[in-house]
Amino acid sequence: MEKIPILRMGSFLLVTIQVDLYDRLALTLETDLINMVHKTGARGVLIDISAVSIVDSFMGRILGNIASMTRVLDAETVVVGMQPAVAITLIELGLSLSGVYTALDVERGMSLLQTKLGPNDELVDDDADDTE
Amino acid sequence: MEKIPILRMGSFLLVTIQVDLYDRLALTLETDLINMVHKTGARGVLIDISAVSIVDSFMGRILGNIASMTRVLDAETVVVGMQPAVAITLIELGLSLSGVYTALDVERGMSLLQTKLGPNDELVDDDADDTE
Repeated sequence: MEKIPILRMGSFLLVTIQVDLYDRLALTLETDLINMVHKTGARGVLIDISAVSIVDSFMGRILGNIASMTRVLDAETVVVGMQPAVAITLIELGLSLSGVYTALDVERGMSLLQTKLGPNDELVDDDADDTE
Repeated sequence: MEKIPILRMGSFLLVTIQVDLYDRLALTLETDLINMVHKTGARGVLIDISAVSIVDSFMGRILGNIASMTRVLDAETVVVGMQPAVAITLIELGLSLSGVYTALDVERGMSLLQTKLGPNDELVDDDADDTE
């Protein structure tokens, strides 16, 4: 399967990473996500990495890139579900994910976004397809 | 990666299927999901298959099994994001997914569950880990 699905939940987007993010897949995800933020007017992006047990500097950079890109589109990114080993590796690699919010799980991530962004507004385009 | 993550959202569980469900992975998902329903008292399960482009009778049966198992635990299953080609294949295979609710996307699936189940109750175990 060639794409990581992006799910729309209210004014947030949810991405669950379950496969290794090799180069092309990661770049596709970046592009898709930014396009979805633009198309839907989403205010927050939740990236669940609970299934990720091995992380490298590439993945750390991708997460940082996504956060920076969504921020210029006025959305915030929260990385949720990080395994302890992944946190250890990231810091050992010198990647502190600055600019990326983190939360223990999706629910806490959503609360964080709701606190940061205020009430959950309606999206601009209700007919947008959230599966591509 | 050996497991499909199950995300908890309020009193619902969300699973995104992005990889081919070979035998062992599918059985692990079944077991994990049923355990999570039991542990959290979830009232609904959303299975997003928007990334699934090829389906076979095994996958059809797994979805049916999950729906039946969750129902005996007093939860409903909604399969969301099915691609048109997948719907065609399922019917051609003679699998009409009876007993499984379907919805176009996660948001519609959640509305469906909320309509069916009434107000979103609190879960019984707030400290349960939703990443395993």
